[in-house]
Amino acid sequence: MTDRHNPSAEDSLIARYFKPLASDPGALGLNDDAAVLSASGEEVVVTTDAIVEGVHFLAGDPADSVARKALRVNLSDLAAKGAVPAGFVLTLALRDADDAWLAPFARGLGEDAGAFRCALLGGDTVSTPGPQMISITAFGRVPAGKMVRRSGAKPGDRVVVTGTIGDAALGLDVLRGGKVAVALGADAAAREMLAGRYRVPQPRNALALAVREHAHAAMDVSDGLAGDLGKLCAASGVSAIIDAPSIPLSAPAARLLANGVVGIEALVSGGDDYEILCAIPEDRLEAFARAAAATSIPVTPVGTILAGKLPPRFLDGQGGEITLRRLSYSHF
Amino acid sequence: MTDRHNPSAEDSLIARYFKPLASDPGALGLNDDAAVLSASGEEVVVTTDAIVEGVHFLAGDPADSVARKALRVNLSDLAAKGAVPAGFVLTLALRDADDAWLAPFARGLGEDAGAFRCALLGGDTVSTPGPQMISITAFGRVPAGKMVRRSGAKPGDRVVVTGTIGDAALGLDVLRGGKVAVALGADAAAREMLAGRYRVPQPRNALALAVREHAHAAMDVSDGLAGDLGKLCAASGVSAIIDAPSIPLSAPAARLLANGVVGIEALVSGGDDYEILCAIPEDRLEAFARAAAATSIPVTPVGTILAGKLPPRFLDGQGGEITLRRLSYSHF
Repeated sequence: MTDRHNPSAEDSLIARYFKPLASDPGALGLNDDAAVLSASGEEVVVTTDAIVEGVHFLAGDPADSVARKALRVNLSDLAAKGAVPAGFVLTLALRDADDAWLAPFARGLGEDAGAFRCALLGGDTVSTPGPQMISITAFGRVPAGKMVRRSGAKPGDRVVVTGTIGDAALGLDVLRGGKVAVALGADAAAREMLAGRYRVPQPRNALALAVREHAHAAMDVSDGLAGDLGKLCAASGVSAIIDAPSIPLSAPAARLLANGVVGIEALVSGGDDYEILCAIPEDRLEAFARAAAATSIPVTPVGTILAGKLPPRFLDGQGGEITLRRLSYSHF
Repeated sequence: MTDRHNPSAEDSLIARYFKPLASDPGALGLNDDAAVLSASGEEVVVTTDAIVEGVHFLAGDPADSVARKALRVNLSDLAAKGAVPAGFVLTLALRDADDAWLAPFARGLGEDAGAFRCALLGGDTVSTPGPQMISITAFGRVPAGKMVRRSGAKPGDRVVVTGTIGDAALGLDVLRGGKVAVALGADAAAREMLAGRYRVPQPRNALALAVREHAHAAMDVSDGLAGDLGKLCAASGVSAIIDAPSIPLSAPAARLLANGVVGIEALVSGGDDYEILCAIPEDRLEAFARAAAATSIPVTPVGTILAGKLPPRFLDGQGGEITLRRLSYSHF
């Protein structure tokens, strides 16, 4: 872990905050220029995702939740790929090395690294006058050839999602004081639940082995269910049909939808869900559901993979097609 | 390769500029959320380094040289660790996806990825209102247990560096129109050589196997020879003595030193050399030099590892100690 341009300031910062996180022997105590990742016959799955202040998290977000989100968006990719976490490297672009921010950041990162058994292997810190940014490259292990891909979905497969969809997009609106915040009024518990879903995703790593065993294709839902299903279908050369009323919603999301505060479009095109979207062959659905039940992660069939190249279609309760003007959320 | 928040804009950008670089089958054509790195019994060496506009490169630097530097600072780490490049992932934080910048950026990156056999495996692009930043995590392969570490230097080992030292720091001064630029006056060739050394480092990957075979310890010189030697000594629990007149200098650097424009301190504490610094046991020095000669990379013994914990000392031609007020360059 090095900063090529302010070594002394960073050396003390690293020693204080990040060396305790480097528990894997391959991290070499962050005392070298590189880390070692053993593979012993397995393949290494590599994923990288960055979050930027003002874009993917808010300037006022607690530092520990920023750290958790930065790691968890990557853990979510590993889960969807059927990989077991093996470690990560961290690039921090900071305006200043402020103890009041770094201490909770390192604490949150360390707690999640421990909980998900994904230790810090190395990194780089750089100074930036611009917004803070956290870029993480995370590693997982799978038996050779067993990474679950986006491609591989077959006509007849059931489309299954974990958890609930749309909460994080509602949570972002809550944090910005938008119409969702207004509609929820005095219901502080609902506001906090939704904001928490935006700030700290719940990656489904406990389900990784079941996904690897049963899914024909999988990815995590980060850009919104509609857009991400479109990507999975495109990569697999298939289409899909989704029964919108089957889409699992949290109680506040269901209420906001019933009251007309938001439409289904906002929920299925909202970003930051970090749930797993997968295609499960019909004859594996029961076994997959059983494996999921053992992890207490809810899984819900929401539709079916079809032959063809059409973009996925979403049907309402009366069988009518829901027109989605946009498939994915954009902060731009 | 995903952008969670502007998928459509980025999908076309990726298709146009980056998919052609994803030549490794493990990249899955950048059509998935993760990449696969096979290891087949070897260990994976992981290194990560970011460069920030205005800090590690200048806003006016040509985009292709920015791309090359971003990749090469990581390739340099792999070389010093004795690892063979295996691929990299890229995080781009951009103000806007400007063709006039991205096209030469992708071209430079692709040319270097091909030349160094280090293909793009995946990445993430994010939007930032701040300075542009390029963060790369690069992977190499070594036989298990064979990564060359900073620790391992033994008293009596010779301290050896590749290439020449101090050029990049002089080059940065040239680009900023400082005293070096003034002193070089009409000597455009010298100014361009030095600026080129700052903008586009020459990582010594051709020497990686010789370093792995012969060096007790190694690292790349990125923070300046004095500071980096201090780190190598600290990691190895040793001291060192350096004969300053032995330090290899380019002709312009030697002239600027002889004319008193810069002192030796500026050269040994200047950053961005990206040469290899290593500790070679005396009885391997000849074999190492022979291996280096076969690659045409100059290697120069500049001192000796000593027992003890003192910081490395630099002696002038008369055996007097040179006082270094600072060991490493700081852009801050």
